Amino acid sequence: MDKKRIVLLGSTGSIGTQTLEVVNKYSDRLEVTALAAGTNVSLMEEQVRKFRPALAVMWSEEAAADLKARIADTDTKVASGMEGLIEAATLEESDVVLTAVVGMIGIRPTIAAIEAGKDIALANKETLVCAGHIIMPLAEKKGVKILPVDSEHSAIFQSLNGERHNKIAKILLTASGGPFRGMTTEQLRTKTVEDALKHPNWSMGRKITIDSASLVNKGLEVMEAGWLFNVPVSKIQVVVHPQSILHSAVEFEDGAVIGQMGTPDMKLPIQYALFYPNRLPMDGKKLDLFSIADMTFEKPDPDVFKGLKLALKAAEIGGSMPTVFNAANELAVARFLDKKIGFLDIYETIEKAMDAHKTIANPSVEEILDSEKEVYERC
Amino acid sequence: MDKKRIVLLGSTGSIGTQTLEVVNKYSDRLEVTALAAGTNVSLMEEQVRKFRPALAVMWSEEAAADLKARIADTDTKVASGMEGLIEAATLEESDVVLTAVVGMIGIRPTIAAIEAGKDIALANKETLVCAGHIIMPLAEKKGVKILPVDSEHSAIFQSLNGERHNKIAKILLTASGGPFRGMTTEQLRTKTVEDALKHPNWSMGRKITIDSASLVNKGLEVMEAGWLFNVPVSKIQVVVHPQSILHSAVEFEDGAVIGQMGTPDMKLPIQYALFYPNRLPMDGKKLDLFSIADMTFEKPDPDVFKGLKLALKAAEIGGSMPTVFNAANELAVARFLDKKIGFLDIYETIEKAMDAHKTIANPSVEEILDSEKEVYERC
Repeated sequence: MDKKRIVLLGSTGSIGTQTLEVVNKYSDRLEVTALAAGTNVSLMEEQVRKFRPALAVMWSEEAAADLKARIADTDTKVASGMEGLIEAATLEESDVVLTAVVGMIGIRPTIAAIEAGKDIALANKETLVCAGHIIMPLAEKKGVKILPVDSEHSAIFQSLNGERHNKIAKILLTASGGPFRGMTTEQLRTKTVEDALKHPNWSMGRKITIDSASLVNKGLEVMEAGWLFNVPVSKIQVVVHPQSILHSAVEFEDGAVIGQMGTPDMKLPIQYALFYPNRLPMDGKKLDLFSIADMTFEKPDPDVFKGLKLALKAAEIGGSMPTVFNAANELAVARFLDKKIGFLDIYETIEKAMDAHKTIANPSVEEILDSEKEVYERC
Repeated sequence: MDKKRIVLLGSTGSIGTQTLEVVNKYSDRLEVTALAAGTNVSLMEEQVRKFRPALAVMWSEEAAADLKARIADTDTKVASGMEGLIEAATLEESDVVLTAVVGMIGIRPTIAAIEAGKDIALANKETLVCAGHIIMPLAEKKGVKILPVDSEHSAIFQSLNGERHNKIAKILLTASGGPFRGMTTEQLRTKTVEDALKHPNWSMGRKITIDSASLVNKGLEVMEAGWLFNVPVSKIQVVVHPQSILHSAVEFEDGAVIGQMGTPDMKLPIQYALFYPNRLPMDGKKLDLFSIADMTFEKPDPDVFKGLKLALKAAEIGGSMPTVFNAANELAVARFLDKKIGFLDIYETIEKAMDAHKTIANPSVEEILDSEKEVYERC
C-alpha cells in the first residue's frame, strides 16, 4: 500500500504536534513530506530529524536561517515566508495538505494547494471564514476534498456520511460554553487572562482558548460550517453542551438527528481527515456513556456572549465583513493576552471595526488581506 | 415517478396503521398492493376501501369469508391463512414487503418474499431471532435489502450510513427501561398487567409493551441486531436511557460514536425504511434539545431483568434456542395478560423452557416451528 503523503502547515502548534503523533502511530500508512511552522526552531529541528520531510519551512527568514544551520546534516531543504508555505502546499510529492496555521496566512497556501489538486485537511478557520466564497467553488472545480479537522465540523461531516443526497434541516453545532458559561456581562467584565485560559474540556492553544471563552470561536465555526456544508447560517443552531460529549449533529427533514459523540480528543478528527472514509483504531480513552452523569443542552445568550451575535451579523453581511470580524478579534485577543484590555473590550473592538468597515462583496484575496490590514491600521 | 408498491403484512396493528398513515401522506409516491391482518375485519374493510389493494388477507378463514362478503363491491381479492400471507408476500405487483405481523407466522412469508426478490421492511422481530441464519444469507444471495423498522435498529442502520466499510467496535442499543426501571426483584413480583402496560415513552401494542417492561423485548432486539448488522451479541451493549432521545448508536474502532436522535415516533423508522436512502419531510414534533432537562444512561441489571440475561444466553447457544426463548415468552405474556401468572413467572417460564430444550444447530424452518410447538405443548 502506498503511504499517504502529508504536508503539514503549522507543525509546532497543538494540532500540528497531535497530527505528528498520528503519523508516528501509523508510520506504515502515512508520511510527512513537508513541515511548516512559525518561529519554534528547536521543535522544528526535532520534527525534521524524526520525520525527515523533503521540505521544512519557517515563517521568518531568521528562523529559517537558524534551522538551516541546525539541520545542515540532513537532506531536508529549508524555505521561508509565504513563498516557502506555497512551495510546501504545492509540493509534488504530496496527497493532502493539513493546514493548521493560525490566522489569515492560511488562505494563500490553501488556494495554491487546491489549484495543485491536493486534498485539504482544514484546521485553519480563517481560510473559510474569510475566503469561503473563493475556496469552496475552487475545490469543487478541481475535484479536491475539503476535510474538516475541527472537532465540531468533523462531527457534522461524519453525521453527513451517506446522507449527502438528503437536505439538511438544521445543523446543531455544539459548544462547551467555555469557562464563563452562564455568566452575566457584569461577571465577564472583570475576567482575567488566567480565568479565560481555564477551558473545562479541551486542551488547545492560547488564542483559541480565549476565543472559546468569548464564543467568538463558535461564531467563526458557524461561518465555517456554512461554507463547508453549504447551508445558510440561519440553519445553524449553536447548542451549549457543557459535557462536550455530543460533538455536533445534523437534523434532517424527516426529523432524524444524526450526531457524533466521543471523548474530547483532537486526534480523532485529525485521524478521520487523514484516513477518510476509513476509520482506524485509535488509542486512548473511549466514550463510556455509563460514566456520564448526564448530558445537558442550553441556548447561548447572545446578548452576553456578543462574540456569537457579532459573528452572525458578519456572516449575514458577508463579503469582506467576516474578515474584519476575524481580524479585529485577533487584534483584540492579542491585546487581552498582553493584559492591555479587558475581556469585554474584545467585543467592543470587533463591533467598532465592523461599524467602521465598508463591506466589499465577493472580495478577492488581495481585498481580503487589505480588509485585514485596514483593521490593523485603524483599530 | 413510479410509485413504490407496498405489501403490508399486519395492517391493523400499531405499526400497520402508522404505515398506512405514511402511505396516505405520500400517496403520490407510495401505494399499497396487498394488506394482511389477523382478525380485525371491520378495520380491514376500512383500509381496503381507502387504499384499494389488489389483495386482502385475513388469518382465519371465517374472517376472510366475512371480509369477502363486506367488500364484494370492490375489486380486491380476498385470501386467508398462511397461503394468503405467502400470496401477498410474493405478489408480482410489489417492490417491498413490510412485515409487521406478530409472532413466528412472519417467518415463511418473509422467506417467500425474499425468494421473490422483494425488499423487506422488517418490523417482525421473530423472523430474525428465530431464522436469522436462514434469512440473512438468503437476502444476500437474492440481493434484497432488509430494512429495519424498529426504532432502535433503524437508528443503528442510519448510524451505519456511509460506514459499511468500517468495522463496528460496539453497538449501543438503547432501552427506555420501561415502567419498572430501577426496581428490585421484590418490587417486580407484585406488578400487575395494568402496571406493565404503562410505558413511559412509546405507544405500542400490548404484547410488546409487556416485553418492554420485562426487557425481553430488548433481549429480542439484541439478537435481531446481531443478525442485521453481523456482529456477535457480545459487542452489543444495552444502554438504559429513560428519555428515549438517543434511539441507538454505533461505536467505531476510532472511538467515534455515531447515533440517531429524535422524538419517539414510529413513523420515522417506517418512513425511512420505505424511502431509504432518501429522507422526506415528516409532520409532527421535532426533537428540541433545549427542552430536554438532561439525557442519562444506566446499565440494566440483568439479575433483576432476567429477560435480558436469558436472551443473551439463548443467543450464545444459538440454533433453535432463541426460538424457544421467544415461544416461551409469547406463551407466558399471554398468560400474564390473562392474569393467570405473575410478572416474574414470565422469566421462570422462559428459563424452564430453555432448560428443557435440546438445541438443534442450524434449524430448518420446519425445525424452528417444531421447536415452537414443543414449547407450547410442554409448558
